[in-house]
Amino acid sequence: MVDSLFNPKFLLNSLSLSLTPRHSDTRKKEIKWMIRIIKRSSVKRSSLTAIFSSRTKPEMNASQEAHNREAFRQAVGNTLERRLFYIPSLKIYRGVAGLYDYGPPGCAVKSNVLAFWRQHFVLEENMLEVDCPCVTPEIVLKASGHVDKFTDLMVKDEKTGTCYRADHLLKDYCKDKLEKDPNLSAEKAAELSHVLAVLDDLSAEELGAKIKEYGISAPDTKNPLSDPYPFNLMFQTSIGPSGLSPGYMRPETAQGIFVNFKDLYYYNGNKLPFAAAQIGQAFRNEISPRQGLLRVREFTLAEIEHFVDPEDKSHPKFSEVAQFEFFMFPREDQVSGQHARRIPIGEAVSQGIVNNETLGYFIGRVYLFLTQLGIDKDRLRFRQHLGNEMAHYAADCWDAEIECSYGWIECVGIADRSAYDLRAHTDKSGVALVAHEKFLEPKEVEKLVITPVKKELGLAFKGNQRMVVEALEAMGEKEAMEMKANLEEKGQAEFHVCTLDKVVTIMKNMLSISKEKKKEHQRVFTPSVIEPSFGIGRIIYCLYEHSFYTRPSRDGDEQLNVFRFPALIAPIKCTVFPLVQNQQYEEVARGIARSLTAVGISYKIDITGTSIGKRYARTDELGVPFAITVDSESSVTVRERDSKQQIRVSVDEVASVIKEVIDGVSTWADVLWRYPTHSS
Amino acid sequence: MVDSLFNPKFLLNSLSLSLTPRHSDTRKKEIKWMIRIIKRSSVKRSSLTAIFSSRTKPEMNASQEAHNREAFRQAVGNTLERRLFYIPSLKIYRGVAGLYDYGPPGCAVKSNVLAFWRQHFVLEENMLEVDCPCVTPEIVLKASGHVDKFTDLMVKDEKTGTCYRADHLLKDYCKDKLEKDPNLSAEKAAELSHVLAVLDDLSAEELGAKIKEYGISAPDTKNPLSDPYPFNLMFQTSIGPSGLSPGYMRPETAQGIFVNFKDLYYYNGNKLPFAAAQIGQAFRNEISPRQGLLRVREFTLAEIEHFVDPEDKSHPKFSEVAQFEFFMFPREDQVSGQHARRIPIGEAVSQGIVNNETLGYFIGRVYLFLTQLGIDKDRLRFRQHLGNEMAHYAADCWDAEIECSYGWIECVGIADRSAYDLRAHTDKSGVALVAHEKFLEPKEVEKLVITPVKKELGLAFKGNQRMVVEALEAMGEKEAMEMKANLEEKGQAEFHVCTLDKVVTIMKNMLSISKEKKKEHQRVFTPSVIEPSFGIGRIIYCLYEHSFYTRPSRDGDEQLNVFRFPALIAPIKCTVFPLVQNQQYEEVARGIARSLTAVGISYKIDITGTSIGKRYARTDELGVPFAITVDSESSVTVRERDSKQQIRVSVDEVASVIKEVIDGVSTWADVLWRYPTHSS
Repeated sequence: MVDSLFNPKFLLNSLSLSLTPRHSDTRKKEIKWMIRIIKRSSVKRSSLTAIFSSRTKPEMNASQEAHNREAFRQAVGNTLERRLFYIPSLKIYRGVAGLYDYGPPGCAVKSNVLAFWRQHFVLEENMLEVDCPCVTPEIVLKASGHVDKFTDLMVKDEKTGTCYRADHLLKDYCKDKLEKDPNLSAEKAAELSHVLAVLDDLSAEELGAKIKEYGISAPDTKNPLSDPYPFNLMFQTSIGPSGLSPGYMRPETAQGIFVNFKDLYYYNGNKLPFAAAQIGQAFRNEISPRQGLLRVREFTLAEIEHFVDPEDKSHPKFSEVAQFEFFMFPREDQVSGQHARRIPIGEAVSQGIVNNETLGYFIGRVYLFLTQLGIDKDRLRFRQHLGNEMAHYAADCWDAEIECSYGWIECVGIADRSAYDLRAHTDKSGVALVAHEKFLEPKEVEKLVITPVKKELGLAFKGNQRMVVEALEAMGEKEAMEMKANLEEKGQAEFHVCTLDKVVTIMKNMLSISKEKKKEHQRVFTPSVIEPSFGIGRIIYCLYEHSFYTRPSRDGDEQLNVFRFPALIAPIKCTVFPLVQNQQYEEVARGIARSLTAVGISYKIDITGTSIGKRYARTDELGVPFAITVDSESSVTVRERDSKQQIRVSVDEVASVIKEVIDGVSTWADVLWRYPTHSS
Repeated sequence: MVDSLFNPKFLLNSLSLSLTPRHSDTRKKEIKWMIRIIKRSSVKRSSLTAIFSSRTKPEMNASQEAHNREAFRQAVGNTLERRLFYIPSLKIYRGVAGLYDYGPPGCAVKSNVLAFWRQHFVLEENMLEVDCPCVTPEIVLKASGHVDKFTDLMVKDEKTGTCYRADHLLKDYCKDKLEKDPNLSAEKAAELSHVLAVLDDLSAEELGAKIKEYGISAPDTKNPLSDPYPFNLMFQTSIGPSGLSPGYMRPETAQGIFVNFKDLYYYNGNKLPFAAAQIGQAFRNEISPRQGLLRVREFTLAEIEHFVDPEDKSHPKFSEVAQFEFFMFPREDQVSGQHARRIPIGEAVSQGIVNNETLGYFIGRVYLFLTQLGIDKDRLRFRQHLGNEMAHYAADCWDAEIECSYGWIECVGIADRSAYDLRAHTDKSGVALVAHEKFLEPKEVEKLVITPVKKELGLAFKGNQRMVVEALEAMGEKEAMEMKANLEEKGQAEFHVCTLDKVVTIMKNMLSISKEKKKEHQRVFTPSVIEPSFGIGRIIYCLYEHSFYTRPSRDGDEQLNVFRFPALIAPIKCTVFPLVQNQQYEEVARGIARSLTAVGISYKIDITGTSIGKRYARTDELGVPFAITVDSESSVTVRERDSKQQIRVSVDEVASVIKEVIDGVSTWADVLWRYPTHSS
């Protein structure tokens, strides 16, 4: 079966560009901080990633592609909105950008996706699920960095005050020129492509300069624009009546898990590894939401924090996924302009492409999850973060990206975040979020002892003393031993204090460094955390696009829409139609409805006098896998949505047959063989 | 089995007081407005209701009762917090009042309760479930009345600025005096009891006067208090970057359904009745949260809006619940000081105690839902709202109240709200939220035609003209015909314009009123809505109290805690224990774990070397219904939590036996008969 309207597999273009980093070190650090924080939001930018694509279809030009993409998106979108999969929030009040309601079928799909997520991750992996409030006091988000750094750069229409995302305006300008300007010189095209490639890395000043250079004005009014400035994306509020306790609507659910680490570790019998999980709403006050259901101001996240000993990131169940093979897009392949390629995940780990087994295990589990939902495995890839995308502390990071009419969309982020988050909350709260490994017998260990002489440091650095002391104490073994050598040889050493972003001179009398032997009974350490984070709304939207196809009606005069949802996900499992309007058939239909309810199968009963063909078309459009037509009092027909094959089943058996197939106990092929086929 | 620690059934005292309304009509209207709005929040005050109780135990005095109640509550609370059913949010940052996290078992209980709610209401009744954002633009909550009226009265410590709820301070003072002052005169006691009874009806001025009269000061500092003033309980925020679009975190989920009425009605084939449902977070910025999990700043609501023709509130499935008999507490019984009594719901409807069948049907379904969850039917009652509690437009309203150590707690509100909400949004949005009934053949109807003469009204009322015109056009038939008579007789009539809260004089030349005969093809009307609204967190907390009991350990030296959750609700269905630590048993245990996962049963495996008794005690405290102990490689024991009975089952069969009992296909008694018993 092929999508007759449009096959997006071959449509999405892409420029393959390598990145030429050109920023100073300081600037790079700033970028990393921003990206790190933005990454923590878990539903992240995809502008950079949109320029990488695994396939192109050379014979189609860019504007034709854009046109088809748009037509396909509209066909899906119209069906989704007409059948209330989603509804722009507050339609009767003319709506609000970036807020959507899920109508009945959309809500059912979402609840099926979440139920399957719970089954696939929480239940099968014995995770500890928690449920924390959305309202979050400032201190937590200070510790995580969101209060200071969770920002987008914004420009204002200088006359009307309307706000725009600065990078979006620049991106639109470049894409528009590239797609529509036939007179564009090769040189100019290369420049614009380069801008697109480094868009996420541009500072406020650089963005502002480009906007000026290209003469970009406000899209609606053509008025001049302000310089770009940062806008914090969290919805702010105030907790309690005093006005003195600022709070925010959480931008992610992960922090609720980190702050509970101590209790959860205890609940798990003080043992590592273990994973905690949370499903819940997260909020992001977008400057100017676009891309429909993909960039919204409130969304459902499902996040896992898997805590693990940093010295042992093996996974006992890794062998269960090792043989799975799917599209991966390692960092090196992206930079050297290659395409994503199929790699068995076992190989990716053993070759060191993926940092460790636990990360690899989750990549494999995410692949299984998405494809079982109905995501096309040929339009799914795992893309590794580039060096400049990844936080400095992260060991490795992969995004599950799904291709849809908007390009490659990041739907799941799977990151090894090392000890960063637990350390941040340990520092801020003063409560040690650590794990213990008891030794069977005490071990003699050589310990690095760094003793700053605070008096001398105070005289030398005054107000900065604390920062210098902390930086000295945080030195790793290698760095400390080098400094020790320098101090002994030259009497002084240069030292970079990251919190001051400054190099200072440390004199011999300011510090002693030694190694001491000690007996230890246990090892105390901050666990690493591996975080798979799922943007549920994005996954569902991509699922809609991957499930949608059209086919001609029987008389060929119109195209009918179908969603080929797997039974697991279908909003309604089954419809019941009396063939004609009469009391006997309606009673049979109601009896079947009762037995469906009894076995927990959701159904829709349609007793209108509409033709049976029209009724089939209606439920195909909702992705209902099976339709029961009552055309006698003893037996009925059951029709499968995609093949349109029909079988005859007795009234008494029909609910259990449907349940069998829905639950996956039998396949449609099994029952097709067991029951007589029916031709309508 | 009896709760050995404390049996709350007989503990909760109560004063039975009748209410003596004493407010002016205008004031009463204001109160009704406030109550109406507060009622809309669905997790409502219970202070008024706490004074009604169905049982007393005369031989126990008030302070002894309070002591036992407190001890029981602490025993439950300690267990819940120690086993992470809940965790005060942000413990490592010293917490925030009114915010709680659900830890792993609490989160599992909540998700089981919600899954059962979906099965019992959405699936069985074929409801249309929707899912709308929490962030809500101001216009919606202006229309619903929340922006102007969703307030509590607050007083401030005049020196420190700390805020308190004015009614709470007065209530505490009165209760404290009544419980602890032995020298209280009968007259004074009656006065304080009266204050408690009318607490919810007091205006800001009256509350302030009482606080002054009794010399109540700030509880923590004894500083003087400010006069009471209203504080809006919604969390406010700003949508988008401009700062010009105020928004709020929704105080209830219902509005999301009302604004989508038109689409949902269409989705239902333009047919009534139908119900829409929504589960989601709601927010309430409490002034000073108390009562632990019962009064929180963020909570999960599950709401149903059942839309029905106001002229036909019968329910086709009413007969299925009519025979259920449970404690009901009609308005008249409350006012005349009687107790709640068992009434079959069929009788309550036929006698007119409950306004209509649909309302009665939902009361019956709520009863079934709560008792199947594990709520004790003897500590559950349905209390009808008193006249002054109910909104003026409401036809009838009943609260499902559950008795716990805090008193009778309103957990579900079931209200017939007539056409109020749809009309409010019709007025504000200009979009008609109405239903149509097509006549089989056109009907001749006599229609009231009210034609205001705008020119004359404009001259007379200037800027108020619009309000007067609207009020005139909104007159009902009776009122209009009376006015017609007055205008014809006296040439003028007095007319109350509610939106101006003023009586104006209408002259004969300002208005014509007539009746005309017309042929109509359909009836256009605003549906009534019947709203069952569930405070999920409150239900869960009461369930914890009703499920908790203690029993002596085997050697009798300590009391062990047990939660007797039904299998449906239990956070974990089953534990697996190898009797002793050895590799064979652990492998068998892991094999059983795999087969439990395969049949979708959640389990916890405990391979610690702790004594089997201790391991049983640990899981009893989590309410796990079954424990599998591996003491051979071929067969195992299965222990039931409450009876402590054990049977022997083969390793291959055990997962399916557990599933059978968990799913309710068999009872424990059934399998006890089928398999050999085992004595430990």
